[in-house]
Amino acid sequence: MDQRISFLTLAVADLDATRRFYRDGLGWTPEVDVPGEVLMFRAGPQLVLSLWERSHFEGEVGTLMTGPGVAPITIAHNVADPAGVDEVLAAAEAAGSPHVQVAVQRDWGGYTGYFADPDGYRWEIAFNPDPGLAGIVLPD
Amino acid sequence: MDQRISFLTLAVADLDATRRFYRDGLGWTPEVDVPGEVLMFRAGPQLVLSLWERSHFEGEVGTLMTGPGVAPITIAHNVADPAGVDEVLAAAEAAGSPHVQVAVQRDWGGYTGYFADPDGYRWEIAFNPDPGLAGIVLPD
Repeated sequence: MDQRISFLTLAVADLDATRRFYRDGLGWTPEVDVPGEVLMFRAGPQLVLSLWERSHFEGEVGTLMTGPGVAPITIAHNVADPAGVDEVLAAAEAAGSPHVQVAVQRDWGGYTGYFADPDGYRWEIAFNPDPGLAGIVLPD
Repeated sequence: MDQRISFLTLAVADLDATRRFYRDGLGWTPEVDVPGEVLMFRAGPQLVLSLWERSHFEGEVGTLMTGPGVAPITIAHNVADPAGVDEVLAAAEAAGSPHVQVAVQRDWGGYTGYFADPDGYRWEIAFNPDPGLAGIVLPD
């Protein structure tokens, strides 16, 4: 099996709220938009982010874990400098993010903060000074 | 905010089991391997998959949702033809996947099945006949 991820799919409760946040708030352009069912955005050279309405997700994949606490994933968006981290967090707040954790200096040398999308999925906005990892994930 | 995902991070219970599955079972090559803490694999042209030991994840992001049911995400790995779907699912089973859902024809025209990694995260192995989406996610 090749080391490749083609789609990341997140189960969402309210696709209209999701559209308002990602399309209208963050200014992203949908690749596919089927109201009440699914919304897809390009998220990299060979990657699509798919937001799938919860009942459709459950019908195919299985009953969802529920309850308090955060989902066991984070999505990182890396930028080229620390100022870019603060800028993106401010943009997410302006877009209506229900939860923003201000960026702090991390033990490993980076500077990162988090915002939540309407379903609480955590995006980590990150500056990573490691040239190896930055070289992999940052666009040319 | 650009439409880019740099890292997908999954909280994992046992990093040694994770390493056995992805590295030894699926044959993937780690980019970063810090025993007991984190394991990272390249997963696309500008994408890294990070498997982060649960207590470290919780220390930074917050207490995890627990309980029965599946995590609210899937990761898709697209291939160029239906036979490729069956091959990858067989490879995942041989690698020790705790749960494989055989591929079926989907209403939207694709052919997909799922396997679970050691933490139950679902990978969808997919053939998508839509040339638009396939053109985005498949390598050249």
